[in-house]
Amino acid sequence: MYKEQYPSKLLEEAVDAIGSLPGVGRKSALRLALHLLRQPQENVHHFVDAIADLCDNVKYCKVCKMISDEDVCPICSDARRDHRTICVVENVRDVMSIEATGQFRGVYHVLGGIISPINGVAPSDLTISDLVKRLKEMEISPENPVEVILAISGDVEGETTAFYIFRQIAPLGVTVSSLARGLGFGDNLEYADSLTLGRSIVNRQPFKA
Amino acid sequence: MYKEQYPSKLLEEAVDAIGSLPGVGRKSALRLALHLLRQPQENVHHFVDAIADLCDNVKYCKVCKMISDEDVCPICSDARRDHRTICVVENVRDVMSIEATGQFRGVYHVLGGIISPINGVAPSDLTISDLVKRLKEMEISPENPVEVILAISGDVEGETTAFYIFRQIAPLGVTVSSLARGLGFGDNLEYADSLTLGRSIVNRQPFKA
Repeated sequence: MYKEQYPSKLLEEAVDAIGSLPGVGRKSALRLALHLLRQPQENVHHFVDAIADLCDNVKYCKVCKMISDEDVCPICSDARRDHRTICVVENVRDVMSIEATGQFRGVYHVLGGIISPINGVAPSDLTISDLVKRLKEMEISPENPVEVILAISGDVEGETTAFYIFRQIAPLGVTVSSLARGLGFGDNLEYADSLTLGRSIVNRQPFKA
Repeated sequence: MYKEQYPSKLLEEAVDAIGSLPGVGRKSALRLALHLLRQPQENVHHFVDAIADLCDNVKYCKVCKMISDEDVCPICSDARRDHRTICVVENVRDVMSIEATGQFRGVYHVLGGIISPINGVAPSDLTISDLVKRLKEMEISPENPVEVILAISGDVEGETTAFYIFRQIAPLGVTVSSLARGLGFGDNLEYADSLTLGRSIVNRQPFKA
């Protein structure tokens, strides 16, 4: 009797693989597998090769730990950027988001995650010691200051991580700052959560006309 | 100056590949690429191998054209199924959907698409001639009837395809039927579209108490 859900083991394994991606359910996985099956074989090989290539040959900038094709990424090797303002972020996507704003001319340091006991991520799993080493190699003095911006999520794990890093780097004489938090531009007071609204009152700023 | 959107060509190519899947946007593709990058290398290789394996080694049942690991699929080789009731469907997923109902004990014929001049799909791109050949090889007589159920979508292209197939197979002496259409079970009259409601009145059935 025909009882299996999938007519083919090969199909089932491909669906299992695709369905293991975050946010992709079994139905979508089947749809995607059958889509790939309808493509010319060379397209599918291009598809899988691009993914395998990324994971096999990816490099990280030895300065800021950003994904990069070079040993030192284009941002870290750009002399026109401010190398004494270091923005510490959780991951690659954060760098891309901040770069997309076009508002930041400093450099980055990519942590590769945030401290999370629940997910088993300890400080040693992140690039915090690399950041400390990087700062120690810079000459820091009141005339030659270095600013570290902790651009980390505002949730509990993010704040823990920020505080942990703060304690590691504050003794090195750097200025530590964090992202401004408050209502978004264009946000309506009515729909703001009370924590954000409360903090944006406490941290109010001089009015600029 | 750092102007590209992606920090790495490898990453960009993987995002291009993943973003080529239907329903996967650039942002999701980036999220998925970075997810894969965080996985152990052997998991990623398992992922890409499963997909390449499916597309390289997939077989189709030589009787019904369903995806299968054998030359003849488990449905076609199951002697307990009714091989004289053939359900014609558009694709593999339709077979899986009908099998999941557990209501059909006949066999299938998978067209591999529907006739669509807009998408450049001609009758010769489908397995219609295989169906005709399959039926011609069966002995069909009033004592030994064969029923072909055209279980094809009710849109214009689906109806065109069904009509085309009907004209090809009707001369062979088979009984041709199509799926019952009407309100879904539990559907409310108020929310039914007028075409469906109209047809379900015209095609009303004897009340079964």
